[in-house]
Amino acid sequence: MKSNLVIAGTNDVSNEIAKSIANSLSADICNPIYKTFPDGESYVRIPCNIKGNRAIVVQSLIYPQDKSIIETILLGDAIKELGAEDQVLVSPYLAYSRQDRVFLEGEPISIRSVLNMFKEYYNMLFTIEIHKEESLKYFGKLSINIRPYTYMAEKIGFKNKNVAVLSPDAGAIDRAKSLSSYLNCDYDYFIKSRDRVTGEITMQPKELDVRGRDIIIIDDIISTGGTILKASQILKSQGAGKIYVMVSHAILLNNAEEKLISSGIEKIYAANTLPKKDKVYYIDVGPLIANNLAAYLN
Amino acid sequence: MKSNLVIAGTNDVSNEIAKSIANSLSADICNPIYKTFPDGESYVRIPCNIKGNRAIVVQSLIYPQDKSIIETILLGDAIKELGAEDQVLVSPYLAYSRQDRVFLEGEPISIRSVLNMFKEYYNMLFTIEIHKEESLKYFGKLSINIRPYTYMAEKIGFKNKNVAVLSPDAGAIDRAKSLSSYLNCDYDYFIKSRDRVTGEITMQPKELDVRGRDIIIIDDIISTGGTILKASQILKSQGAGKIYVMVSHAILLNNAEEKLISSGIEKIYAANTLPKKDKVYYIDVGPLIANNLAAYLN
Repeated sequence: MKSNLVIAGTNDVSNEIAKSIANSLSADICNPIYKTFPDGESYVRIPCNIKGNRAIVVQSLIYPQDKSIIETILLGDAIKELGAEDQVLVSPYLAYSRQDRVFLEGEPISIRSVLNMFKEYYNMLFTIEIHKEESLKYFGKLSINIRPYTYMAEKIGFKNKNVAVLSPDAGAIDRAKSLSSYLNCDYDYFIKSRDRVTGEITMQPKELDVRGRDIIIIDDIISTGGTILKASQILKSQGAGKIYVMVSHAILLNNAEEKLISSGIEKIYAANTLPKKDKVYYIDVGPLIANNLAAYLN
Repeated sequence: MKSNLVIAGTNDVSNEIAKSIANSLSADICNPIYKTFPDGESYVRIPCNIKGNRAIVVQSLIYPQDKSIIETILLGDAIKELGAEDQVLVSPYLAYSRQDRVFLEGEPISIRSVLNMFKEYYNMLFTIEIHKEESLKYFGKLSINIRPYTYMAEKIGFKNKNVAVLSPDAGAIDRAKSLSSYLNCDYDYFIKSRDRVTGEITMQPKELDVRGRDIIIIDDIISTGGTILKASQILKSQGAGKIYVMVSHAILLNNAEEKLISSGIEKIYAANTLPKKDKVYYIDVGPLIANNLAAYLN
């Protein structure tokens, strides 16, 4: 019978999740040797016995993303060379997932390129909340998009609290809906409108009356935090209670978390798919990924 | 009839060679838009009409190599999306070509990974002097390894000079031999030996008497320059005349060129496949690549 071997990726983020997954699966963990040559080329080596076993590579595509991607490929090549029976990729954060279509003629579909590369080396892909789930078709093999919000809400203890869930726009309403169904609470989304005279964009909850209510704003990825900041200001002005943010991937450029907290947001909760920031509460999604792995692997 | 469109790569090096190739082929050149998003993701866009034509992407895989590779893939994806009839890659410097086999168990064959990615997007590959020519098999399609030394020697004016050509080791003797046949001069290689007592490695020309003769040391790639430095010191001590170095890819880490010049090397000549260094003389291999393109494309 083939056994599972969890291969820890290059960076601290991947390392932490790999350990957590291995722990939950009671699987062995393998720590490859990583270095960068003086000229800048990446080097990997897997000093573990993989022959005939299943290798589960855990690699979050964090900055520098291109290096993370190439290392994922090099790991795939090394594992294949070692004679693994099955090659599974767990990539909690898939970089390039926002370039998922040609917005301007002449652009690539970057996430297609990335997944196209991975499919040469991996038979199965697990990720945490890719920007658009349909992008996974570019992988062309079994791929699982894991939504972490219910799991996160359970860990945080949001159940049986008097809250409502809001998504930043109509397109993402599904996320709010599914979390609210677990929490058994109201949900809604923000509508955006542009002032015809000033050009200023305003946003407000479509129908929900937020006065005196605690609100969870839910999103897949926060980059500059601009939309969430605006949302939080509107909610405050409408008399909302505590405002929580729950996000899968907290990029938070230029210390965006500081601005969000200063604006009156109570707490930011994120999955541990990206490098840690002070003032953000992280929920380890390793056990959740392990559950999904266990359901599909045998 | 389809026409050729040369697509300039991301970096200055690729840009210069692309211009030179386009010029030699009398082909149009296309300058893509390149940027890096605040989070570090690469962005490319090709604002040119490629539909039904042949796109010749010129991208030297310079530092940061992984970014250069991913951009090559993104360009390939964008060109395909635009409906190019044919996709040709000119990669004057192929990074990772020294990891061309498993030296220690558990390592990948990195150059295989890189070429495997490229073959998804390009039908033909041209490069300048890959470390080991047989690595090109991993591309699996028509690939041309261009040896630039004769062309370089012609541009430098080495013909009819009283010189001899030396390769740093027996494995690379082919390079020395083929250049010497063009120059109609002697050639040889260095043999290395280790002192049984001190462990020190010494090297000296196998047979060639270098007294009073000008020498060209030829190599595919100079990284730290350690071997060339040692070779030059031996040649000096044996009474050689002027010592020239001719190399395809001058990486020259930590200002290695300074040490080489200080050691008495007259001049270092390199192909323009990598970023420029003071004290190195560069020969533009654009026209040479264009000649090869013209011979294979129609």
